Amino acid sequence: MTAATCERGLPPAEFEARLARAQRGMATAGLDALLLTTEPEVRWFSGFLTEFWQSPTRPWFLVVPRDGKPIAVIPGIGAPLMARTWIDDIRTWPSPQPDDEGVSRLAEALRDAGAGAGRIGLPMGPETMLRMPLNDYRQLQYQLPAAEPVDASALMRELRMIKSEREIAKIAHICEIASNAFAEVPQLVALGQPLTETFRAFRMALLRNGADNVPYLVGASAPGGYEDVITPPGEDPLSDGDILMMDTGALFDGYFCDFDRNWAIGQADDDTRRAYDTLYRATDAGQAAARPGSTCADLFHAMRDVIVADGYECGNVGRLGHGLGMQLTEWPSHTPDDRTVLQPGMVLTLEPGLGIGPGRSMVHEENIVIRESGAELLSRRAAPELPVID
Amino acid sequence: MTAATCERGLPPAEFEARLARAQRGMATAGLDALLLTTEPEVRWFSGFLTEFWQSPTRPWFLVVPRDGKPIAVIPGIGAPLMARTWIDDIRTWPSPQPDDEGVSRLAEALRDAGAGAGRIGLPMGPETMLRMPLNDYRQLQYQLPAAEPVDASALMRELRMIKSEREIAKIAHICEIASNAFAEVPQLVALGQPLTETFRAFRMALLRNGADNVPYLVGASAPGGYEDVITPPGEDPLSDGDILMMDTGALFDGYFCDFDRNWAIGQADDDTRRAYDTLYRATDAGQAAARPGSTCADLFHAMRDVIVADGYECGNVGRLGHGLGMQLTEWPSHTPDDRTVLQPGMVLTLEPGLGIGPGRSMVHEENIVIRESGAELLSRRAAPELPVID
Repeated sequence: MTAATCERGLPPAEFEARLARAQRGMATAGLDALLLTTEPEVRWFSGFLTEFWQSPTRPWFLVVPRDGKPIAVIPGIGAPLMARTWIDDIRTWPSPQPDDEGVSRLAEALRDAGAGAGRIGLPMGPETMLRMPLNDYRQLQYQLPAAEPVDASALMRELRMIKSEREIAKIAHICEIASNAFAEVPQLVALGQPLTETFRAFRMALLRNGADNVPYLVGASAPGGYEDVITPPGEDPLSDGDILMMDTGALFDGYFCDFDRNWAIGQADDDTRRAYDTLYRATDAGQAAARPGSTCADLFHAMRDVIVADGYECGNVGRLGHGLGMQLTEWPSHTPDDRTVLQPGMVLTLEPGLGIGPGRSMVHEENIVIRESGAELLSRRAAPELPVID
Repeated sequence: MTAATCERGLPPAEFEARLARAQRGMATAGLDALLLTTEPEVRWFSGFLTEFWQSPTRPWFLVVPRDGKPIAVIPGIGAPLMARTWIDDIRTWPSPQPDDEGVSRLAEALRDAGAGAGRIGLPMGPETMLRMPLNDYRQLQYQLPAAEPVDASALMRELRMIKSEREIAKIAHICEIASNAFAEVPQLVALGQPLTETFRAFRMALLRNGADNVPYLVGASAPGGYEDVITPPGEDPLSDGDILMMDTGALFDGYFCDFDRNWAIGQADDDTRRAYDTLYRATDAGQAAARPGSTCADLFHAMRDVIVADGYECGNVGRLGHGLGMQLTEWPSHTPDDRTVLQPGMVLTLEPGLGIGPGRSMVHEENIVIRESGAELLSRRAAPELPVID
């Protein structure tokens, strides 16, 4: 099955709507400007999409004023690409230039945005970072002594957690691509294949099925279950009785999927079949609980209750799922303490895990979007029984 | 041609040697500890290698004391993988836990390292960032009021710029893989092929030839030269008279290559052939100038002089090459102002570019390592004349 096509890019209307939402939030929070430095933040407001962020050399800045369109303050190398976005005010400097790596240009843009002596919102809270050298951030504060840096994480989180229909379509598309690639796995793997080759074959299948890239592919293959879900593959061969798991974050047009699949190699014992069944039902329970008005804590408990009722220790990777979108993982988190109320347009993973025995665990994962009526699956549901690869 | 095999991982002796160099530098700089938060910094000291860094949710910390081995302060999900490295002291917290996202554990580790009231080195200078929320950094300072954060960029730069033979072997290996994949390009592309498909076919060729992943693939195809070198591919078909350029940062065992190749589609006019020839000779000049004792500015001028002597405007992406290793781009930069003195073990790109006409430019790139005797090529040298794909 080949995934249907999906349009690339986003129309200016999408960015106008985002900016309007942001500026309403800025008014409420009393912010004179937002200062954004990371890839997803800059892209959310501008549409600027490039793998060049791999290079840590140059900082990139976007200033969102209280009124009017964002101002891009970026290295010269990015000007032609930024000029293709809806952004008009593009200010550059010849980077790298360590003595003044855009800081003076940025200070000027913030002054022009009316925030030179105002409240400047930066994301400072959970799951955020400042993508510029600390020394340059200090220099910026020195150049704008009357400005007040203010935490804008809550606003950015609120804005980005609710996806538009166009964003949901892109995530649905990469989920379909990954579902198709996962369906090919029984044809790609064989007993005795080194795990590096299994991963390589699957990565290529993701690309062949339409993924733009595969920034994230982790997993394991181990007897009757695996311990560790973030290790790169080694040269160990797939062995009879192994449980093979692959978990991928593949990209289409800058949007991620994030889900996994499990297979038994050769044969599966009753313990692993039973664990698989429990996680399948835990996922069902999470999906049933995922509706507007529920909280992430509700989702956590819905999944955990199934796992514990079946006599297992609940998975201990810290949470049972999370948000998803321009990043592999985004707010919120399905933990007992996350009281985020689900709203239509949120894209989430359901990721229950359990311990089968010492050093043996299993994790399932699906991707959903919250609709008025409840959860809609974006990934194609895993097989109801543990598939065996002969 | 298939690339020879290359060992994965690094022995404890490599990390012991790195730590000894670091602690000598710390003593000289009067640092009581280093605090590291980014993927390459943590991996340089520990060997901790995973694509899980794609997830921005959780911070990861490594504390390097003045004496003794590093202390890892990491989310629980990373404990099994960190336990496979040479690190013994692994402290975890159940993350995500936004109310105290490892900050108390980190403060405790810094106190145990004897730096609770000492000088704590963090990278704060060019090409660095702090990978933890700003609020958490403030909270750390609040918990360690007598500690003094000090810029440790110069030390980290000095340590990481000189690669060991084992690191060079990994970079050489991924360069060979990419050279082999580039050699396949004439068989992978065809007139009329959408550029997205060209890129997809090349990405798969990189994987098939042995790359672990391809985090970076940019380029363009445009009549007689391209304007923009960081844009993702569009659906435009390869057309007669286009210059196709692809520039890749592929990975093997956590080490990057970074070089490009150019092809003419169908035919090439004299202007583009001449530009190609100039850049070929500029690269030769850069390679000849790249020896211990030269500076990055010398390399810049060696390449620029060839370009300008031929009557071209020198490329304006800010520099004519850079360092390379665990990141796609690392210090130093080949600019007129970078006086970094080349030393054996430095791995560098040579990346001359020029303007052919309005909106038409061309860039060449090769990867080298500095040896006592001069530059040793790691990439297989580009064809001396612009290759034409019929």
